[in-house]
Amino acid sequence: MEMEAAKPTIKVAAICGSLRKNSSNRGLIRAGWAAEKICGESIKGMQIEYVDISSLPFINPDLEVHGTFPPAVEDFRKKILEADSLLFASPEYNNSVTPSLKNAIDWASRPPNIWAGKAAAIVSVASDSSGMLSQYHLRQIGVFLNIHFVNKPEFFLNRSQPPRKFDSQGNLIDPQVKDNLKGMLLALQAFTLHLRGGFSSKDGNIL
Amino acid sequence: MEMEAAKPTIKVAAICGSLRKNSSNRGLIRAGWAAEKICGESIKGMQIEYVDISSLPFINPDLEVHGTFPPAVEDFRKKILEADSLLFASPEYNNSVTPSLKNAIDWASRPPNIWAGKAAAIVSVASDSSGMLSQYHLRQIGVFLNIHFVNKPEFFLNRSQPPRKFDSQGNLIDPQVKDNLKGMLLALQAFTLHLRGGFSSKDGNIL
Amino acid sequence: MEMEAAKPTIKVAAICGSLRKNSSNRGLIRAGWAAEKICGESIKGMQIEYVDISSLPFINPDLEVHGTFPPAVEDFRKKILEADSLLFASPEYNNSVTPSLKNAIDWASRPPNIWAGKAAAIVSVASDSSGMLSQYHLRQIGVFLNIHFVNKPEFFLNRSQPPRKFDSQGNLIDPQVKDNLKGMLLALQAFTLHLRGGFSSKDGNIL
Amino acid sequence: MEMEAAKPTIKVAAICGSLRKNSSNRGLIRAGWAAEKICGESIKGMQIEYVDISSLPFINPDLEVHGTFPPAVEDFRKKILEADSLLFASPEYNNSVTPSLKNAIDWASRPPNIWAGKAAAIVSVASDSSGMLSQYHLRQIGVFLNIHFVNKPEFFLNRSQPPRKFDSQGNLIDPQVKDNLKGMLLALQAFTLHLRGGFSSKDGNIL
Repeated sequence: MEMEAAKPTIKVAAICGSLRKNSSNRGLIRAGWAAEKICGESIKGMQIEYVDISSLPFINPDLEVHGTFPPAVEDFRKKILEADSLLFASPEYNNSVTPSLKNAIDWASRPPNIWAGKAAAIVSVASDSSGMLSQYHLRQIGVFLNIHFVNKPEFFLNRSQPPRKFDSQGNLIDPQVKDNLKGMLLALQAFTLHLRGGFSSKDGNIL
Repeated sequence: MEMEAAKPTIKVAAICGSLRKNSSNRGLIRAGWAAEKICGESIKGMQIEYVDISSLPFINPDLEVHGTFPPAVEDFRKKILEADSLLFASPEYNNSVTPSLKNAIDWASRPPNIWAGKAAAIVSVASDSSGMLSQYHLRQIGVFLNIHFVNKPEFFLNRSQPPRKFDSQGNLIDPQVKDNLKGMLLALQAFTLHLRGGFSSKDGNIL
Repeated sequence: MEMEAAKPTIKVAAICGSLRKNSSNRGLIRAGWAAEKICGESIKGMQIEYVDISSLPFINPDLEVHGTFPPAVEDFRKKILEADSLLFASPEYNNSVTPSLKNAIDWASRPPNIWAGKAAAIVSVASDSSGMLSQYHLRQIGVFLNIHFVNKPEFFLNRSQPPRKFDSQGNLIDPQVKDNLKGMLLALQAFTLHLRGGFSSKDGNIL
Repeated sequence: MEMEAAKPTIKVAAICGSLRKNSSNRGLIRAGWAAEKICGESIKGMQIEYVDISSLPFINPDLEVHGTFPPAVEDFRKKILEADSLLFASPEYNNSVTPSLKNAIDWASRPPNIWAGKAAAIVSVASDSSGMLSQYHLRQIGVFLNIHFVNKPEFFLNRSQPPRKFDSQGNLIDPQVKDNLKGMLLALQAFTLHLRGGFSSKDGNIL
């Protein structure tokens, strides 16, 4: 059976919820991207593309004219549409998701909802709650959008606990965290294939 | 391909979160069970078994002795273990899940966690919020347990809006609600098969 | 005791979570403002000021230079600082708060947190959930910010149920809803005074 | 003014969400009670009473006959009624509150709702999330019941981080945690007095 002979490549759109230049959450995405390049065989069949959200205007349905969106929104929606699955990396602001992340989500949810049916993973670097509360808000948002989130593993990174995880440019430097991140990507890959119906028993059972 | 020739039968464990004798949430389960009998062809391949939770003691890890659970708990865990997927029908108490439902969930989560990897659907009859808040609490609980919930459709039934949906014994009498319930069962069936990897394109795409 | 002889005037900052020109949530604020003008005696001692959030940039801590915020942010923070309590009127986007509302909240939370200790009320016009899910997200956000929300009454307005509540400019035209809105403002007033310690038994007990 | 001359004694009903004999969450309550005895002057004016919930039956409205509750329920409701404020100490089970705690809450919410208008504090000992997710579920439950929770400080205790916080009987032995607990009780006292309207500026401003 062809699908098993050559497991199809999964395109992952990676979105960072922080606009900071040296965001460590963006560092997670860079690391994920690096992992794909470096690890080669181990997460073969996955392409991670960073999708920038910093140029989107605030969502306002008044900006939709004759069924078209502002150019930056059209471009963003197109990139999400082409992706098979999603990687959200975001800090937590005040017990919930960041405005930038919610804004990107809301734009791509305008009819037709572009998110529907995609698999997704969430990772976060934060203090205190490690992003836990924002991740659960994101999951509730995802129900409405029909996003299927990986349940396990969960990835919460508490920035304030030693050892230091990121350098001053926000690059991930901790090998244990890199391993955890790779574990999350593998889980996302397996779950995406499951939802497609192209996962075979030879690939193991991540459920 | 065999899997497509004879779609495997899915066993659904149905749990009611209310202990009331004439609970309308239990009425939804009876209706689901009836639907399976009556509809025949349309939801072929699905067996719904009502699993009673009224005899479970309050969860208390002190009751676990040498790795064994109280008899009622062992029995309950066995029934969940044998099920492929889950149907939760529950009222909402004070913006959250009922104690009986949470208690059943917690018992079957004790190591080894019996819920892991199962697909699930939630339906609720309630006033005011129609059970919405409790359903989202249940979804957050399910992340920890690695339950995969159907995202769409959502099933919220506001008891206080006309027409009358249940008779005095809690039997579902509204044809529109019966149709919605059937839609939910079909979505649960499709999602369960997807997660198993046995869903083919001929069955449509519910994602 | 002076505070009891002349109940002090409470300044309420009213924030709308929608950027739409004819937003019905903004209509609720206008109606609240109108109520204050018209009702006179009945909600004496309350001033509602609409605080526009449409010119705030997306939050990005990189924009804070030497402890100063962008001008629009400084201006917004000053208005919140001067308010005794808060009125949030917002639609629900995808099961949660709007990006614009979260953005305004996050800017005024930057140290020093301007929200701390204020009383607040939430109202929403929405479809389906009537804004319930976003209101509960906002309450969770408010815990971190030390905002004290009115518990009762709750104000959820389902736009899709008859009769029509707003005209085409988003003005509130339903007398029952106006009454409910007035009830919410009275509860906010009483709660604000309670938290200040200036509420006397003569004012009744709203707890 | 008399209220200021002799600050009234506040009665706190303390409820533990675990049924385990050596529950460390019950240890927090014992420590709170001990703190009151020992600290004397510092939290003068506060009485903490442990209210046992282990003999309550599962909530089932069918058990209410002619407006009366089962004896254990009547007794529990009476104790809550007599309390001015509440201390919840509970573990987290599967990302939410325990069945025992929810059951106690639901019984005292049956009309007339006994919780209405009371101030409350939440503390938790747990692994992983430190009880954070269950505390936020409890806060959402409390909105419906009109409970006013202390926002700050929040008290989350991660059992799995050194040093050891409890002995084998569940007694709190960590001095830093005792201090945090005392801080929470003082915040509860101040908030309770605020809500009553009997808090004067001399007592400081906890808002």
